[in-house]
Amino acid sequence: MKRIVIGLLGLGTVGSGVASILRTNRYDINCRTNSDIIIKKALVRNLLQDRPYSEDIQLTDNPFDILHDPEINIVVEVMGGIEPTRSYILEALSQGKNVITANKDLLASHGSELFAAADQNGCDLYFEASVAGGIPIIAALRQSLTANKISSLIGIINGTTNYILSAMTEQGRDFDEVLQEAQELGYAEADPTSDVEGLDAARKLAILSTLAFNTTVTYEQVFVEGISKVSKADIKYADELDCVIKLLAIAKNEDGEIEVRVHPALLPKKHPLATINGVFNAIYLVGDALGETMFYGKGAGSLPTGSAVVSDIIQIVRNMESGSKGLINSSCYQNFPLKAVDDFTTGYYIRIKVKDEPRVFANVALFFAEAGISFHSIIQKPRPDRSAEIVLVTHPCKERQLRQALDSLNSYSKLDKIYNVLRLETSGSLSS
Amino acid sequence: MKRIVIGLLGLGTVGSGVASILRTNRYDINCRTNSDIIIKKALVRNLLQDRPYSEDIQLTDNPFDILHDPEINIVVEVMGGIEPTRSYILEALSQGKNVITANKDLLASHGSELFAAADQNGCDLYFEASVAGGIPIIAALRQSLTANKISSLIGIINGTTNYILSAMTEQGRDFDEVLQEAQELGYAEADPTSDVEGLDAARKLAILSTLAFNTTVTYEQVFVEGISKVSKADIKYADELDCVIKLLAIAKNEDGEIEVRVHPALLPKKHPLATINGVFNAIYLVGDALGETMFYGKGAGSLPTGSAVVSDIIQIVRNMESGSKGLINSSCYQNFPLKAVDDFTTGYYIRIKVKDEPRVFANVALFFAEAGISFHSIIQKPRPDRSAEIVLVTHPCKERQLRQALDSLNSYSKLDKIYNVLRLETSGSLSS
Repeated sequence: MKRIVIGLLGLGTVGSGVASILRTNRYDINCRTNSDIIIKKALVRNLLQDRPYSEDIQLTDNPFDILHDPEINIVVEVMGGIEPTRSYILEALSQGKNVITANKDLLASHGSELFAAADQNGCDLYFEASVAGGIPIIAALRQSLTANKISSLIGIINGTTNYILSAMTEQGRDFDEVLQEAQELGYAEADPTSDVEGLDAARKLAILSTLAFNTTVTYEQVFVEGISKVSKADIKYADELDCVIKLLAIAKNEDGEIEVRVHPALLPKKHPLATINGVFNAIYLVGDALGETMFYGKGAGSLPTGSAVVSDIIQIVRNMESGSKGLINSSCYQNFPLKAVDDFTTGYYIRIKVKDEPRVFANVALFFAEAGISFHSIIQKPRPDRSAEIVLVTHPCKERQLRQALDSLNSYSKLDKIYNVLRLETSGSLSS
Repeated sequence: MKRIVIGLLGLGTVGSGVASILRTNRYDINCRTNSDIIIKKALVRNLLQDRPYSEDIQLTDNPFDILHDPEINIVVEVMGGIEPTRSYILEALSQGKNVITANKDLLASHGSELFAAADQNGCDLYFEASVAGGIPIIAALRQSLTANKISSLIGIINGTTNYILSAMTEQGRDFDEVLQEAQELGYAEADPTSDVEGLDAARKLAILSTLAFNTTVTYEQVFVEGISKVSKADIKYADELDCVIKLLAIAKNEDGEIEVRVHPALLPKKHPLATINGVFNAIYLVGDALGETMFYGKGAGSLPTGSAVVSDIIQIVRNMESGSKGLINSSCYQNFPLKAVDDFTTGYYIRIKVKDEPRVFANVALFFAEAGISFHSIIQKPRPDRSAEIVLVTHPCKERQLRQALDSLNSYSKLDKIYNVLRLETSGSLSS
C-alpha cells in the first residue's frame, strides 16, 4: 500500500477537522484510495499551545519545514488570509506538490494566478472546502454538471447571515439584538463586517460564477449589499407579501452578459431556497439540459468543511495513483463582459413614510410612472402621527429606472423617510 | 484538438438527448475537454425509422459495427434490458473501450461482473444516468463524499410514483384514477408494475447502497412494497398526523448491518423530502463528517438524463487526456450482512375497521401491548354502520412484533378489516 504524506498549513477549526476525519475513517479512506494517508506535519503559530490530534503530527512554526519536505505529496492550506498564504501555495506548487485550499478570500482575488501556477507545475489544485463547506458544489460545477450551459445560480452561502435572518423571521426580533446573540453563541465573529455586509458571500460567488460560466469573475466585480439595514418591519411586510428575506448570492448569464450580485432579497415562500434556515447553505442552479437542481447541507464547521478537504485529498491520491495530474483544467475559456449595475433588472420593494395628505400618494405613484415603473402590489397602513407608511412592490425594472424614481421621491417635500429598498428574486419554481 | 469518437447503443429518449446536448453545447464541451467529441454510429432496431439528429450519425442494426470499430473510444449504452445488452458491454470492455451505461436493471443485477470486466481491461465504466437522471448522486457517492462513513440514505427516486402520490395528495383523488391519468400523460407506462410496485426504485437503491456502503447489494436483496394499496383515506389520515405519504428508498448502515427497503411511508411534513413533489427526485443522506445533506432535481427525461451521460463522457475524455483509466475503483471492500426483515425497526400506521362495541378497543390495544408495542397516536372516527374506523400509530418496534400483533388482530372476531399497514420514517431534521 502506497504511503501518501500530507502537510497542513494551519491546525485550527478546519485543520483539526481534517485530522479528525483522517483518523476516524482511516480504514475506509485507505480502502477507497488503496493508500495509507498520514499527516506528517502541521504549521502552527504557537508551538506550545495544546491541541487535539497533535500527538502524532509534527508541529512546526517554519513553513519551509513543510513546503520543502520532499516526502510531503499534498499540502493542505487551512490557515486563511492572503499573505503569506499566497506565497506558501505558490512555493508548494513550484516544489511539485499538489495543493488543497479552503481559502475563499485568496481564490476570489488571486485564483487565476494560482491555477496558472498549478497548470505550469503539473499539479492538482483542489478547493471544494472554499465554498459551502461540505456541499460538493465545486465538484458539481467542475465535473458532474459540465454537459450544461448554466444560465443562473442562486446561493444561500453565508451561514451567519442566514442564521440572523432566520432568527429575525422566526422570533420577530431586530437585527442588532440577534447579531449580538449570534456573536455570543459563536455564530458571528467579534467583527461581523465580512459576513453581515455580504463580503464573504461575494468572495464565494466570485468562485462559483467563475466555474459556472468559465469566465474569470473576481471578488471586486461582485455587486454587494449587506443585511444590516433589514429590519423586523421589512420581514413582517415580506411575510404579508408571501415572501421571506434571504441574503442571496446571484449569478446569471444572459446571452453572454454576466450579472453577479449579493444582496438581501424578498424570495417567494414557495421557492426551494426559502425553506433553508439557520446555518444551512444551499445552491440552486439552472442548466440548459439539467433544468433546475438544488444542493444543500452544512456550509461551515470543523467536520463538514473537513469532509470537503478530505474528499479532495482522496481525489488527488486517486489521480496520483493513476498517474494523472491537472485532470480538471482551470477552464476560463470565455471572456464574458459584466452587466452594468444600471442594467440589473429586478422587482423592488420600497418602504417609505410620507405625509398623510391629499394627492401625496398620487404624486408618489407619478414619480414611478415617469420612470416607466409599474406596481405589482401596494400596502398602505395608517400611522398615529398624520403620516402614512407605504410599501411599494414594483414589477421588474432596471436599476437606473428605480434610481430616477427614488431621486424624484427624495426631492419631494411630502416624503418623511425612505426606510428601505430591497430587491425581489422571483426566478425558479422547483418543487413548488 | 484530439478527436474523440462515440458509439451509441440505442437512440431512443436518452440517446437522442445525448446527441442533442453534444450538438447544442459542442463549443463549450470541446473547450472543457480540449477535444472534439463526435457521435459516429448508433445502433438502432429499425434503420428506416425517422429520427432527429440522425443525419450526421451512421445508423446500424449490427452491434459489432460499433463494438469492433477501432476508431470508437467510448461506447454509450442507452438501449436498456439485460440481454443482449450485458454481452455488448462486456464485448466493448474486452475491446478496450470505455463504457457509459444508463442501465439500472443491468447494474442492479450484474454490476459486480461489469465492474470486474472494466477493471480487468483497464477501462472506465461510468453510470451517473442510471439513478436519478441529472442529479449527480453517483459522482457524489464515488467522489465528493468519500471522506464520510454514510449511515443512512433516503431517496425519492421514482418519478412516476411520486407524481401519482403528489396528485393523490393535492387533489384528494384515488390511486386508480390518478394512475390512469398518468398513463394518458405519458408519466406512467402501459404496464406500470415496475414503477408502481417499487421495483424500479429497488434497482436504483441497490446501486446507491452498494456505493454508499462499499458492499455489494443486489436488487434481489432489497425489501420491496409498492404504492398500489395506498388509498386517499390513508393520505387524509397522514395529513391529520402532519405527514405526507411518499414512496421511499431507504438504506441504512447500523453498526455494519445493512438495511435496504423500498415502501410507501408516512414522512413528517417538516422533513426536507416531504416537499419534493411531482416528477422531481431527491436523495437525502447523512455522513459522519458532513452531517445531513440533500440533492435534488429532475430524475428523468431526455435532456436531464442526457446531461448525466454527457457529463460522464466529459470525465472519461479528461481521464483519457491525462492517461488515467479506472480512476474510480469499484471499491466493494466491505462484506456487510443484511439485516433480517423481522428486525426492521420503524413506527407503523395501522388502519382498521372493528365492531363498535364495548371492550373492542381495549382488546385491540391489548394485542399490541402483548407484542410489546406502544402507541404514538390514535385516531378513532365513528361510522354510520355500528363499526369504528381506527388508525393506530405505533412507536418504533420490530417487524416481528408488529406481525405478532397483526396475527392476534386477524384472529379477533370483532375485526372487520385491516385496511392498510404503512411504515413511518422519522429520521432527519434538516432545515426543519
